[in-house]
Amino acid sequence: MIVFEYRHRVRYRECDPMGIVYHTHYLDYFEAARTEALRSMGLAYKELEASGVIMPVTEAAIRYHKPARYDDVITIQTMLDPEVPETRLRINYLGWVGQRSMKVVSGHVTLCFFDPRRERPIRAPAAIKHVFSAAIERLDDLTGVSA
Amino acid sequence: MIVFEYRHRVRYRECDPMGIVYHTHYLDYFEAARTEALRSMGLAYKELEASGVIMPVTEAAIRYHKPARYDDVITIQTMLDPEVPETRLRINYLGWVGQRSMKVVSGHVTLCFFDPRRERPIRAPAAIKHVFSAAIERLDDLTGVSA
Amino acid sequence: MIVFEYRHRVRYRECDPMGIVYHTHYLDYFEAARTEALRSMGLAYKELEASGVIMPVTEAAIRYHKPARYDDVITIQTMLDPEVPETRLRINYLGWVGQRSMKVVSGHVTLCFFDPRRERPIRAPAAIKHVFSAAIERLDDLTGVSA
Amino acid sequence: MIVFEYRHRVRYRECDPMGIVYHTHYLDYFEAARTEALRSMGLAYKELEASGVIMPVTEAAIRYHKPARYDDVITIQTMLDPEVPETRLRINYLGWVGQRSMKVVSGHVTLCFFDPRRERPIRAPAAIKHVFSAAIERLDDLTGVSA
Repeated sequence: MIVFEYRHRVRYRECDPMGIVYHTHYLDYFEAARTEALRSMGLAYKELEASGVIMPVTEAAIRYHKPARYDDVITIQTMLDPEVPETRLRINYLGWVGQRSMKVVSGHVTLCFFDPRRERPIRAPAAIKHVFSAAIERLDDLTGVSA
Repeated sequence: MIVFEYRHRVRYRECDPMGIVYHTHYLDYFEAARTEALRSMGLAYKELEASGVIMPVTEAAIRYHKPARYDDVITIQTMLDPEVPETRLRINYLGWVGQRSMKVVSGHVTLCFFDPRRERPIRAPAAIKHVFSAAIERLDDLTGVSA
Repeated sequence: MIVFEYRHRVRYRECDPMGIVYHTHYLDYFEAARTEALRSMGLAYKELEASGVIMPVTEAAIRYHKPARYDDVITIQTMLDPEVPETRLRINYLGWVGQRSMKVVSGHVTLCFFDPRRERPIRAPAAIKHVFSAAIERLDDLTGVSA
Repeated sequence: MIVFEYRHRVRYRECDPMGIVYHTHYLDYFEAARTEALRSMGLAYKELEASGVIMPVTEAAIRYHKPARYDDVITIQTMLDPEVPETRLRINYLGWVGQRSMKVVSGHVTLCFFDPRRERPIRAPAAIKHVFSAAIERLDDLTGVSA
């Protein structure tokens, strides 16, 4: 599993009259988390888009375990299967408050690769395949070291 | 099935650089749709909350079929099973653009009943049971008429 | 003064832990209100954009008089000076809860006309001038009647 | 002048079909910036609220100079007058993209001090006065050093 962590301080505007994070905002946190995960892997989504490929969300699911509150620091773990994607990219997420002491959310988001000019889904572009291959290689190296 | 319709005009702020509704906003539309569905059934969520019961979302899932665009009028169908809820309420949704010519999203949201003072889940309060019983009775009447 | 009214039911996601509408959302209400005001005048902003003109906001100011709360119905009054705009359009707003019994906000937003292809501000396009001229004419007619 | 800097990476959901940051989001950036500025001064807004004082926004104004785009890193400068506030706190902001090469926004937000139990405005609480006094003292020290 390829894992990245993204931290977010809960803002006042994100909390509702119950005093907790309104449920839709976690999907916004997921978006920020995957953008930074891809950047860590060497791919800025902005450049992918400039190259003519977009990645629309096709499907998402989320489970709310505990509420996060105003000013909490949430850690979102972005978890990627060590496989080069072909037509879709499924990303799993866990959200924690504190030092992983309280799990607040879990979920996944699936994205596809899309050519907006021809208006049709496409196969994963070379830039995506490349960063996944490289990440898998680094994982294998780590496994080799630990063996 | 108990079905309610809610219409929403897509706003500029809800659309992203792809020119389409950003995926998280559909969950906001679902929230507005279920609030109006409950109101049609005779229950203002505001009053439920004033009576000491809140309904946090425990889980949600959504599938994106086609993109909706700026200024489109989206119809969200809120679909409720004809059963009086006990500990949870699962609500199904369909979203359409145009005269149901293009399905844009489908999904569901599950809510529980919660006592914020004692900080624990509770059984469905009488107000909820009452509006569901009444709605089911009206459905049965309709079925009787059509028989 | 050319005046239009837009109604909005305050949603749960728009309220903060104080139980009131979070202050930034009023600017969203203003956007919806001016879109519907322009539509009433005969101009869909979507079509203006399709014709190659956008209207970015250059400046905004807002004053908060009283808080609006969850489930309140807010009436936003969009007020336009009876003048055909040349290079900018300044729009004034008032927001009320109830039958104008409680003023919640007042403010204004200034927009310019912009050609995104040449990346420069332009003069008001014919479509804008036309709908303002027509609205002013209708106002004059009304004034004539009341004289 | 007491100055703090806050950095924010522009997210996809914050950009509109023009490909630029939708204008209302800057007020959200301002909120995050002032929260972190107060925290740097030694005051967590969360604790202020727990002590029974809230700080509602009474008024805001913003000017848009240049558009910020997706994935840009915006620096928000929060600027406070070196005066202990009495009944209101006015905060000035500047927003930049790049190494202060491009000014994107300027504006201010005024907050008051409010007792939600008695539902009335109050004078600045001791915690606020204390952190401002301390910040002004540090500024004076700096001025002394540079003299």
